[in-house]
Parts: sequence; C-alpha cells; structure tokens
Amino acid sequence: MTTEALAVPKDTVRAVQWIDDAVCLLDQRRLPCKEAYVTLHTARQVADGITDMIVRGAPAIGITAAYGVVLAARDAYAKAGSDWRQVIESDLIRLSMARPTAVNLNWALGKMRAAFEEANGNPEGLLLAEARAIHEEDIAANLRMGELGASLLKARAEVVTHCNAGSLATGGFGTALGVIRTAYARGNIKAVYVGETRPWLQGARLTAWELVKDNIPISLLVDGAVASLMKSKPIDAVIVGADRIAANGDVANKIGTYGLALAARAHDVQFIVVAPTSTIDLDTASGHGIPVEHRSPTELVRFGDVTVAAPGTRAWNPVFDVTPAQLIDAIVTERGIVAKPDLTKIAALLTT
Amino acid sequence: MTTEALAVPKDTVRAVQWIDDAVCLLDQRRLPCKEAYVTLHTARQVADGITDMIVRGAPAIGITAAYGVVLAARDAYAKAGSDWRQVIESDLIRLSMARPTAVNLNWALGKMRAAFEEANGNPEGLLLAEARAIHEEDIAANLRMGELGASLLKARAEVVTHCNAGSLATGGFGTALGVIRTAYARGNIKAVYVGETRPWLQGARLTAWELVKDNIPISLLVDGAVASLMKSKPIDAVIVGADRIAANGDVANKIGTYGLALAARAHDVQFIVVAPTSTIDLDTASGHGIPVEHRSPTELVRFGDVTVAAPGTRAWNPVFDVTPAQLIDAIVTERGIVAKPDLTKIAALLTT
Repeated sequence: MTTEALAVPKDTVRAVQWIDDAVCLLDQRRLPCKEAYVTLHTARQVADGITDMIVRGAPAIGITAAYGVVLAARDAYAKAGSDWRQVIESDLIRLSMARPTAVNLNWALGKMRAAFEEANGNPEGLLLAEARAIHEEDIAANLRMGELGASLLKARAEVVTHCNAGSLATGGFGTALGVIRTAYARGNIKAVYVGETRPWLQGARLTAWELVKDNIPISLLVDGAVASLMKSKPIDAVIVGADRIAANGDVANKIGTYGLALAARAHDVQFIVVAPTSTIDLDTASGHGIPVEHRSPTELVRFGDVTVAAPGTRAWNPVFDVTPAQLIDAIVTERGIVAKPDLTKIAALLTT
Repeated sequence: MTTEALAVPKDTVRAVQWIDDAVCLLDQRRLPCKEAYVTLHTARQVADGITDMIVRGAPAIGITAAYGVVLAARDAYAKAGSDWRQVIESDLIRLSMARPTAVNLNWALGKMRAAFEEANGNPEGLLLAEARAIHEEDIAANLRMGELGASLLKARAEVVTHCNAGSLATGGFGTALGVIRTAYARGNIKAVYVGETRPWLQGARLTAWELVKDNIPISLLVDGAVASLMKSKPIDAVIVGADRIAANGDVANKIGTYGLALAARAHDVQFIVVAPTSTIDLDTASGHGIPVEHRSPTELVRFGDVTVAAPGTRAWNPVFDVTPAQLIDAIVTERGIVAKPDLTKIAALLTT
C-alpha cells in the first residue's frame, strides 16, 4: 500500500506480531514502565491474553484472534489430521468468548473460518496468509482513515482523544490516533489533549507513550476535566475509536466516551468516530443491543498494590458506554466518511 | 444545637479539632489506609497543612484557618504583647494565600479579624471562642441543609455525588453528604453512586471511607462513567458541594462537576448544590471571576511511586471547574433553598 502525496509519519510500535511461528504481544498492562513482549504458542494462551488485556483495542483484538486461529489449526491438525475442522471448534469458541464488546473479534474469526473452505492438507500456511492479510488490511485502512479524518479538521486544530485508539489498539498506525498522526504530520494540529481514561489509564499509559515516542506532544487530563477544557480552550474536535458500531450508527467505545460526546455537543465541538468497517455490526440494530462488559470492582478499589477505597466499598464498573448516533458528527471508515450517521447511511456505506 | 423531629444520624468523623491548645487535623492524604492525625502548633504549619491538602474541603479549610488565627495570635502576643495586631498580619496573609479557590477561607479570616476589635490583653481565649463558634455554626448549618436538601429528593432516590462534601470537608456532618445522611436515615435513599474523583480520588478515598463507616452503602464509579450511569439507572439527583458560589449563582467545585451538570441536564436529573452561605462570594460577579487553582502535572503522571505516563508527557490539571447557574436546579444553604439560582435570588437570600 502507498500513502498519498503528503508525508505520513510511520508509527513505531506494533502491539501484535507473528514471530517464529508464534503470536508475539506487547504486554500493554506493563506500559509505560516496561516494554515487555509475551510469546503465545496456543489458542488458549491467546484467548487468555485477550481476556487479561495483554492486548486490547477492538482491531488489535481481532488481529490477535486471527493469529490465534493459526495456532489452533496447527494444534488441531497435529491432533486430528484431516479432521482438524472438528477439533478446532472448541478453540474458536474460546477465542470468540475472550471479550464480549468488540465485534472485530468475531469479524476476524468469521474471515478465518471462511478460509477453512480452501484449505487442503495442513491448513497452517493458508490460514497464516489470511491472518497476515487481515493485519495488513487493517494498517492500510488506518492510513486511509488518517487521510479522510484529517480532512475534517480545521487548521491548527486543538483536539481531544480518549483511551487509546492508536498503534497499540490496531494492526498499526491507529484509528483516532491515525487521524491525529496524519494531521500532525501536515502541521495541522496545534494541541492534543488526552483523557487519562480510568480505570485502566489507557490514555496515560498507552496513548501518551506511543505519541511521545513519535514526537507528538500531548497534554494529559483527568477524564472529568474535559468539559472544563472545552470551555477554556478552542477545541475543534473530539476524535475517538470504537469497539462496536450498531446498524443505526450508535457507537460503543471506552467508558467516558458518551460523556465526552455530551460535552462536545454542548460546546459545539465536532465529535468524530474513526473505525474500520469491521467494527460495524449490522446484526445489532442499535446501541441497546450491544453487550457491555462489566469488570471487577477491584479495578476501582485498588490501584496496583495500594488500596484506594475503604473495605466494603462496592463499584459499578462498565468498560464501555454507548454514544447515540445523534451526538456523532462523523464516522470515518476506510470506505469513506459517514456524516451524521443513521441506518440508511451506514447501510449505504457497506454496499458501496 | 438540636436536630429536628426525625432522627438524623450522627456522623463519626472530625477532620478538624482543637485539642490541647493546638490544631489537630486528620491527615486526609493517608486515608483510607491509615487514620493518622497531625498536630499543628503554629499558623505557618496550619497554612502549609492547607496547601499540602492534609485538610481539604472549603468549609473545613475555613474552620482550620480560623483555628490557625488563634495560634497566630498566641504567637504574636508572646512576641509583641499589646502590639500583637501588627505582628499577626504576616500570618494572616500566609493563611489567606494557602489555597486560592475556596472563599470560605477568607470568609473565616474576616470573621476572626472582626473579633480582634473586642480583644483586650491576651486575645487567645476570645479568638478561640470565635473559632469554635465558626466550627459549631458550620455543623449546625450542615444539619439544617441536610433537612432542606432531603426534601428535594423523591422517595427511594438513587443519587450521585462527586469528590467529598462530607464530614471530612466541613466542620462535621457534611454538605452534600449531609443531605444524603439525612435522607438515608429516613429510608429515602436507595443507592448512592460516588465518582472516584481523579486525580486525588477523594470520592474513593474519602467519601467511600466516611459513608462506609456510617453504614451507608455506596457504589464507586470512574468519573467518566456518570453519563452512562444516568442512561442505565433512574438517577434522581446529583448532589455536590461547592468551593465558591459567585453572585450570579455560578458554582466552582471539584473538577468534573461541570461535566456532571451537563450529563444531568441531558438526562433530566436534578442538579443540587449544597453549601453554606459562607461559600457565596458577592464580590465575584460570575464564574469567570473565580480563580481556579492548577496543580502539578505530577498528580497525573505518577500514582504514588508508580509512573503511569511516559516521560515527556505534559498535563493540564485544574483542580476546580465552574458550573453555570443555568445548569443548577437548586442551591441549598442553611438560610434556605434557592431554586434556579440567579443574581436576584442569591442577593435576596443573603438579605433575609
């Protein structure tokens, strides 16, 4: 793939790689203190790695799962030879259930499953080629979305992002951060503000790390400060990724996104979602149908080894929220921009 | 002071006390892991204790400063005898500048300064009586506001609060938490949700601690989750304290409050501010005139001893934000409730 006329900076990080016949994940739980990689040799390890958030971000989860299928197929073929298609099912289910909200996971599994048809003999080579194609297409999609999204920003834009929708969340380059990278390379970004994104602090730990690494200066803020930021500074846009987009354009994304969208609307700030079409789930009519993962209260009650809330404190800890399509100014995909998304426009995008 | 007909639970914590001729502060930075008290013998120590956030919360800061004046006066009288009024000035300035946003600090210093007039000989006893009166009046005001505020809630209310506007933030009983305590004692609260309140986690560390201690169950959530909570649960009201209320009813409070108010308006949830009239600053025409303290980026870049953001990460770290009066359904004070506050209604409240 080639990028267009103007220079687009390469990004420097890869969250998911296939190295020496195994899945190699950058352990995102340990960033930014340590850049450590974990090598996974079985589909079960891959599923656990997704559940335990060694890797996170909807597109990256999908790519990781695709490589996981390669490991599952190798194992199944070793066990059952030409009957590998029966044996592999339990691993596919395990991968499928590793996390509930990101639809890219099952999209990637579906693509891999479709490739099963063509396999003769040992399927590993063919499936690896398919997984690699999914990975490379994701990067190409991100570069394209970077171009498209950057066109929505005004000159010297001050932008806000949330969580991490960057190289670490994708095959590379990023969705929301891909737009920021492209616009920054063109001298079109004056300031990037990043919500720290409690409870996992993906904004502080991951987005700051990967943007500082690429020499894009950022300012961190607590999630609760964004409304005040919009009152204090001439913010042009909020740019976020997505974990699932329903048929009507409702967007599930990291908890806090919906509040950002409300604040953006109140301050007349553009609200832009950047996600590949693999994030769109036509089987889910609206945001009401998107399963939202809830995680342990421990994530709020403790911080590392430190107890931050009194014993007996409960917590309400959903990982995602749903932003209604009405609050979204544009969904940027690799197939084009959907302005003011709705059922008809989303359907039209997918049939072009 | 007595409470009215229905039982109001006593709260169990005191953030500020006068013990053995010194100021005794509960060190709120160490909660909930450790309940440690610090004894301060000089006004300078008191000013530093306020700056360093051993004590926080607008009313508690005011009370602490009042006791600090007693220490200053003792010192000044020991040094200068009947000329103590000249010598004390540097300590008064130091106390006054300890933190910029809470107006209760200068309100309390003004009350203490007014008492200087009556002092003959050693002023310590008279000033201590005045500081104690300020402290006791604050508790009485909180009990009264608890009654008034509870009347605004519907039966079996589910409520949200932010930061800590409780016993720890006041002379005792609390403002926002005073309302919750009163309503809970009457069986009128079904659920209390508390935003963890980054970066200092006052919601997690302080509010959870004091409410669990008083057997009021709470659920903690990340600050970014509140908009989603309002979509998921039948929330009746957001109840918060205030650090300064401008003449037109704009309210400065902990960062995140403004975003809560936007979310509350979008979901038709009552937004209630509870604060004594000492928090109202008629000299500040509107929220634009309220000085908002910014603190060190370190508060976001590190968590205790752990680095959570990459080296080179900057931060935008205002401690407070301003909620415009238009988003506020009621300000509850010890003198009465101001519904849909504005300049005229606030002025009328203070002249009754």
